[in-house]
Amino acid sequence: MTDQIAPTLPLSAWMKQSQAQIETALSDFLPPCAQVPTHLHEAMRYAVLDGGKRVRPLLVYAAGQLFDAPQDELTRAGCALEMIHAYSLVHDDMPCMDDDALRRGKPTVHVKFGEATALLVGDALQAQAFLILAQGNNAPERQLEMLQILAHSSGSLGMCGGQAIDLASVGMSLSREQLEQMHQLKTGALLRASVLLGALCGQQLSEDERAALFSYSHAIGLAFQVVDDILDATADSATLGKTAGKDAEQNKPTYVSILGLEQSQQLAEQLRLQAHQALAIFSTESNNTSPSSRTARLLQLADFIVQRSA
Amino acid sequence: MTDQIAPTLPLSAWMKQSQAQIETALSDFLPPCAQVPTHLHEAMRYAVLDGGKRVRPLLVYAAGQLFDAPQDELTRAGCALEMIHAYSLVHDDMPCMDDDALRRGKPTVHVKFGEATALLVGDALQAQAFLILAQGNNAPERQLEMLQILAHSSGSLGMCGGQAIDLASVGMSLSREQLEQMHQLKTGALLRASVLLGALCGQQLSEDERAALFSYSHAIGLAFQVVDDILDATADSATLGKTAGKDAEQNKPTYVSILGLEQSQQLAEQLRLQAHQALAIFSTESNNTSPSSRTARLLQLADFIVQRSA
Repeated sequence: MTDQIAPTLPLSAWMKQSQAQIETALSDFLPPCAQVPTHLHEAMRYAVLDGGKRVRPLLVYAAGQLFDAPQDELTRAGCALEMIHAYSLVHDDMPCMDDDALRRGKPTVHVKFGEATALLVGDALQAQAFLILAQGNNAPERQLEMLQILAHSSGSLGMCGGQAIDLASVGMSLSREQLEQMHQLKTGALLRASVLLGALCGQQLSEDERAALFSYSHAIGLAFQVVDDILDATADSATLGKTAGKDAEQNKPTYVSILGLEQSQQLAEQLRLQAHQALAIFSTESNNTSPSSRTARLLQLADFIVQRSA
Repeated sequence: MTDQIAPTLPLSAWMKQSQAQIETALSDFLPPCAQVPTHLHEAMRYAVLDGGKRVRPLLVYAAGQLFDAPQDELTRAGCALEMIHAYSLVHDDMPCMDDDALRRGKPTVHVKFGEATALLVGDALQAQAFLILAQGNNAPERQLEMLQILAHSSGSLGMCGGQAIDLASVGMSLSREQLEQMHQLKTGALLRASVLLGALCGQQLSEDERAALFSYSHAIGLAFQVVDDILDATADSATLGKTAGKDAEQNKPTYVSILGLEQSQQLAEQLRLQAHQALAIFSTESNNTSPSSRTARLLQLADFIVQRSA
């Protein structure tokens, strides 16, 4: 959500407003339950609506503020990213993958609707993500680039590739570099895409701007995972809304298992500062709005990602 | 494959040439086995390469001849459609769906690589399909429309929706109309998309042209399924390259079970004639090439779909 209406909104209120806006849009972008095939549409809506922090759409909104991007296009891109994320959770929770029964405090899709429907829910949500992004109203060339970014970041050289490496690494001893590579694909790629798509809703980007946004999103992507590992080791299931301690139980390598808790916390803080520094380029350019307001939300989200408790 | 080089090539030779061209392009459009994650890329290539009749790319090539579409763009669109088709087969074969062990004469992906990898193979192939289509060089507005068509035809109101209805109909008594609705989504949607995408690689379409192509592809889509049902009831597994007689065994409704064998064969022939008639519009327009050569391949493919033996 851009800040035209309430430029001084505190982060928590801005997040709440933005999340409500995304929730409404996600509902609008999904076929209604009453439409055939009703069982599939009911399950798709169950998988997407009423849950999650919507970190990816928040990053889209925040990055859109760099260039005053149109609100509707940001919402559309945010919903496409969130549908990709939601489909990956549905498939990731299935018995042949993580076999998880609880997600966002609710039974997972395959527990509630059956495995076959869960498989189709994920497949159909991925198609829906590309459909709504392909219907966007940015300049067609830019819209095509956004679709390329979404596809690349979610495919075998992005999210799916990270999941494949994750699968292959269960029970293995990974180095910190290997762990980072895995996470930069599994969760990082889609977070980087979120920042890029938000900015591209505003304008075409220079190489310097791309590099700065890459650096920012690379840092927060990694920070996101480090904090996830810290929370998995320290929080309880009720707080997380998902089964805590699964990583250790499944003998999966984590930052906490490799670096220990204290060093993991230090790393998260380092990454937060890196993210802040990466955005300096946008503060030195001349522009009509004050530098701080253009980057404020991205900076605040970097802080939020590191300091969150769930 | 367009006929510039060999305009008088018999259908079987044209199909063989086109299939070889698609095979090369599919290989080029897939990440190499040596690229990380190697296990996933190996499995993706296994799922896509060296098999199948490539009916969807053949329809793209044939429809492209209506408007002299550029060969490279047709190949790209055909590969995108084939990757969507291939991913759907991988997921469809999984234990929670059809639980099939044999496909195109080879062990299915989950049998050879494991269920978790099969799930990711399908997910990553879908993303790859949208990636390569988004990198196309048609006019950007048309390229976006092609992406919308691909997404719509493969999602919950297309292929995935048909699979959901199919799932729900196991063991149920379907009417002929319900069976037709299911198939028009499950396999028909992607076949219709193939014809449209091929034509759109050539030029923007008038409403009449769209309606004619819809009528043609609607007929061949249905014919394709009727013939599939006939073959499933009459051919053996070695000829089909997949397990024969599964539909009857799983108590799934088919055209043969509803109409009987003889009426099913009559229906297939009716649909073949409908497909021919639908293309009449393209023969009455004035154009530089002879009417017959513009529509020849589409007409021959309609015949092939009905008269094939595997």
